[in-house]
Amino acid sequence: MTINDQLCHIVPGKELSARIRDLQIRLKNQGLDGALVIQKADLFYYTGTTQNGWLYVPEDGDAVFMVFKSVARAKAEARLPVIPVLSPKKIPDILSQQGLGLPETLGLELDVLPAAQYLMFKEIFNTSHIQDVSFEIRSQRAVKSEFEIQCMQRAGLMADRVAEQVTQLIRPGMPEIELAGLLEAYARKLGHQGLIRMRLWDNHLFYGHIMCGAAAAVPGAFASPTAGAGLNPSIGQGPGRDVIRPNEPVLVDYVFSLDGYLADHTRIFSLGPLPDDLQKAHEAMLTIQESVRTAAVPGAVTGDLYDQMIAMADDLGYGDFFMGAFHPKIRFTAHGLGIELDEFPFIAKGQTQTLVPGMTLALEPKVVVPGKGVVGIENTWVVTDAGLDRLTRFPDAVCVV
Amino acid sequence: MTINDQLCHIVPGKELSARIRDLQIRLKNQGLDGALVIQKADLFYYTGTTQNGWLYVPEDGDAVFMVFKSVARAKAEARLPVIPVLSPKKIPDILSQQGLGLPETLGLELDVLPAAQYLMFKEIFNTSHIQDVSFEIRSQRAVKSEFEIQCMQRAGLMADRVAEQVTQLIRPGMPEIELAGLLEAYARKLGHQGLIRMRLWDNHLFYGHIMCGAAAAVPGAFASPTAGAGLNPSIGQGPGRDVIRPNEPVLVDYVFSLDGYLADHTRIFSLGPLPDDLQKAHEAMLTIQESVRTAAVPGAVTGDLYDQMIAMADDLGYGDFFMGAFHPKIRFTAHGLGIELDEFPFIAKGQTQTLVPGMTLALEPKVVVPGKGVVGIENTWVVTDAGLDRLTRFPDAVCVV
Repeated sequence: MTINDQLCHIVPGKELSARIRDLQIRLKNQGLDGALVIQKADLFYYTGTTQNGWLYVPEDGDAVFMVFKSVARAKAEARLPVIPVLSPKKIPDILSQQGLGLPETLGLELDVLPAAQYLMFKEIFNTSHIQDVSFEIRSQRAVKSEFEIQCMQRAGLMADRVAEQVTQLIRPGMPEIELAGLLEAYARKLGHQGLIRMRLWDNHLFYGHIMCGAAAAVPGAFASPTAGAGLNPSIGQGPGRDVIRPNEPVLVDYVFSLDGYLADHTRIFSLGPLPDDLQKAHEAMLTIQESVRTAAVPGAVTGDLYDQMIAMADDLGYGDFFMGAFHPKIRFTAHGLGIELDEFPFIAKGQTQTLVPGMTLALEPKVVVPGKGVVGIENTWVVTDAGLDRLTRFPDAVCVV
Repeated sequence: MTINDQLCHIVPGKELSARIRDLQIRLKNQGLDGALVIQKADLFYYTGTTQNGWLYVPEDGDAVFMVFKSVARAKAEARLPVIPVLSPKKIPDILSQQGLGLPETLGLELDVLPAAQYLMFKEIFNTSHIQDVSFEIRSQRAVKSEFEIQCMQRAGLMADRVAEQVTQLIRPGMPEIELAGLLEAYARKLGHQGLIRMRLWDNHLFYGHIMCGAAAAVPGAFASPTAGAGLNPSIGQGPGRDVIRPNEPVLVDYVFSLDGYLADHTRIFSLGPLPDDLQKAHEAMLTIQESVRTAAVPGAVTGDLYDQMIAMADDLGYGDFFMGAFHPKIRFTAHGLGIELDEFPFIAKGQTQTLVPGMTLALEPKVVVPGKGVVGIENTWVVTDAGLDRLTRFPDAVCVV
């Protein structure tokens, strides 16, 4: 058995080279002579592999892909030549062998690269001026190709099946963590890859959040409208040992992660009907979702969409509890997603980015009521010329089991 | 319901203040006037919470814990006063209010802190010289307290139950990923917290690796003797869609993560007996384990233990396949663990660190045979005055089902 037999779902080679050419245009526009791409999500986007390596992209000419481990696997997965390298200190020599000098200005992913590595690369590229290239990379990655949208559509179909499965598994008296485990086992069988990549440092999501009643409204560090009680202070989010009781909202905010691409959605389940006030709050969130759906056309300004959602929540009487009940609240109502869960664009306070076809959004108007629970909705959408197209399709209403 | 009702497993307050005092001694010895602790694993160690915040530890006097989100939760979890802060730019003012000036030399966790944050803190602490404090923190955390060892003992008991459960779940023709999901659901019910923290940048482990036959021997980027085929190049490790066949080694290398502490172990399962060569290779790894077990007493030098293991593997005829079959191989045979999976000490090439009671080790002699599979063993041990004490106790032999 060779390594190639084990692999599938390869990103088309033509698309990878087009992505590198697009980055080169962005480098030129920013006055960067080259960029060294290291972070795995970015490497996957430009090379098709997440093996340990360094992709040097000069503003012109061929990119140079240097790999430490595993070279054999990188050769099987990547769609450009792989040069084995045992230490980053060898990078200038290898570039020189390719006829490339050190760049005057070098782009590095300073938002994610650890400081110690940044200081090491300052020595290795000792004649270069270093600039952050993350904004360029993230801006490029915000607009998805047809191939990427198809990957996310497939992830969305799987997310729908996970939501459907909740109705089969949920039982009164079941601890959140037990429902989570059973649902996750089902997702694994469907091909859920486990890891959900996040760019924001030291933020981690494990599948997502299943939380019932008051436990769902417990605040936490996670960059999300909800965190939840969780199992212990080391995690401080997600499912815990609270048991599912009738007539309480069970929040299922789960991400499906398939072949490197994500779909994110939230549904509210309930054993028997919810109290009127929570049912009404849920419906208000659907009203806000529908309003943004019609407004989120190409050219719409993300900060304006945020203001519109906040104003609607105020008008509907949910201002204090919209997107969280504790201060500081998070200041976004939607996030881009694709390879990572926190991609551009953000529908957030003060944002000036405009929507462009191919952008994706996890749009999540939610109400957090301390002591009672969380209701609301989240769906993954893609911006098209005709407006938002929906990738997660399980019904939006509270799902009474 | 208050936030406090939701929480349990709190680290004793006296232990937390002793940890801070110990760090202060280390700061003094290194000529550091203060350290700002930010990474969540380190924050958890010194404060008991993983809420978003900044812990300033001066070389003398009280530590100052400034929290962004969630303040309410940090107040419930931490065992020192919490000062709300909306931006890291306010840190100098808050320190000044506490009667503290900016340190001449400031320690930051440069191995994990993103470069952009490092550059931001250089501006905020604009009169301070910045040094890496990670080595001091990691050296301190390498030696576990009684409380921490008890946490790891409990995680070890759970790891044993997960291994036992494999015998109930494994079936011929079952894809690796399906067995993984069922086993993970069982672990979740036992309280597995999901996230397994790793310090090494951009390395992620999702429970661990379940891989059968040849798929287990596929190399990859992950800092481990094994990676495995996995589901796709975006992940490139762990369980995939290969099905479990009779008379092949099924590697179950799983980490149990309980209340913030880890236990790591590997067992080999098989439907029917293994071929003689693999069975013999497994027994050779048990011989190496036993030899290191008796040698790994307080005062033993980690690099010497590594050389001993390599020499034994050579003598037994497994030199080419010991700890990997593809170059570059990893150069360690054991790693410390606790809150993170990759803590000090490492039994690794050239290491001069000596063993001290309270250190923990995941000792993992393994043989990787391309095209056939992986055999070998891994257990979590704690160094005591009397030698290694074992925390994972499921039998070491190949478990024939």
